[in-house]
Amino acid sequence: MPKISEERKAERRAQIVAGARRCFAREGYEGATVARLEHAIGLSRGAIFNYFESKADLFLAVVEETSLEYTEIWLDRGFRVLLDEIVQADADWLAVQLEAIRHFRTDEEFKRSAEEHDRRLAESRPQRLERLGAQSLRDDVPLETIGIFLGLVANGLALRVTVDDPVPDLDQLYELVQTGVGPRSPR
Amino acid sequence: MPKISEERKAERRAQIVAGARRCFAREGYEGATVARLEHAIGLSRGAIFNYFESKADLFLAVVEETSLEYTEIWLDRGFRVLLDEIVQADADWLAVQLEAIRHFRTDEEFKRSAEEHDRRLAESRPQRLERLGAQSLRDDVPLETIGIFLGLVANGLALRVTVDDPVPDLDQLYELVQTGVGPRSPR
Repeated sequence: MPKISEERKAERRAQIVAGARRCFAREGYEGATVARLEHAIGLSRGAIFNYFESKADLFLAVVEETSLEYTEIWLDRGFRVLLDEIVQADADWLAVQLEAIRHFRTDEEFKRSAEEHDRRLAESRPQRLERLGAQSLRDDVPLETIGIFLGLVANGLALRVTVDDPVPDLDQLYELVQTGVGPRSPR
Repeated sequence: MPKISEERKAERRAQIVAGARRCFAREGYEGATVARLEHAIGLSRGAIFNYFESKADLFLAVVEETSLEYTEIWLDRGFRVLLDEIVQADADWLAVQLEAIRHFRTDEEFKRSAEEHDRRLAESRPQRLERLGAQSLRDDVPLETIGIFLGLVANGLALRVTVDDPVPDLDQLYELVQTGVGPRSPR
């Protein structure tokens, strides 16, 4: 096999993840057969599974990538921008991620793969918490709880988008969140 | 067919909903065949589908029932108690409800049935908002947004329970929520 550069590898990996996301969003986890994945990605199964161990692993890589993208928006551009991004997200892809949660609970291979991805995400958690801590937040509740709280609101909103329920006024929503986590005024 | 009293009808309907919830939680939406539903409920398909139009309709009735139960806990016993109930909820049943969201998006019969159930839930929304309004809340953000915000936190937590992520300290979480929605102190 010809040697390809790290940069070229990263590009190809990104191509696979992007194509797979489109395919999973459209077909669902079960419906995204290897043939359909090949077609959506524009590469042969050989090339695809050179980068990923299995379909479950590929799916989880797309989930992980999505999660990191949104976390980046949140930490880099703020929670208000994140809310905007969520209501504009691809509801089909959100729905497929929710559908897949049952696989995490019942499919052993999926579970093992998920634990691997979770471990990777956990490794970078301290850096993310540190970046969150650089924001202006109350200091009487642990940063970790504040992070989880903000994640609950974000995921709750994503769930709402997925079921096509009316989106609330995001400025008002942000005002509630911000009051909850912002610095306490001195009494 | 022998006439049965309204009370007996309500009892039987509750029996069907309870059995169906167990069956859907264990088998998933697809896996819950009519034969398995009959077994879990302890009634024949004739009796079951005397009360519900279709499997989709039955499933959505169980979803609706679950939603009303949690709303009742929230409005009657408060949001802090609701948080406790969510972390003790049956994660399998939560996962199946999430899995079914894709059906809402792709299956026409499911969609029609869901709209019917949504309409019913919407009818009782004004009363629920009124009960929420009786609580001690800030008055500079519309009650409806406050209701949606609390729903996002609750659903986000349910999602977290479903993927087996560690549950945050609920008192700390409640403190953040309460600061967000509680009455504003005079400046």
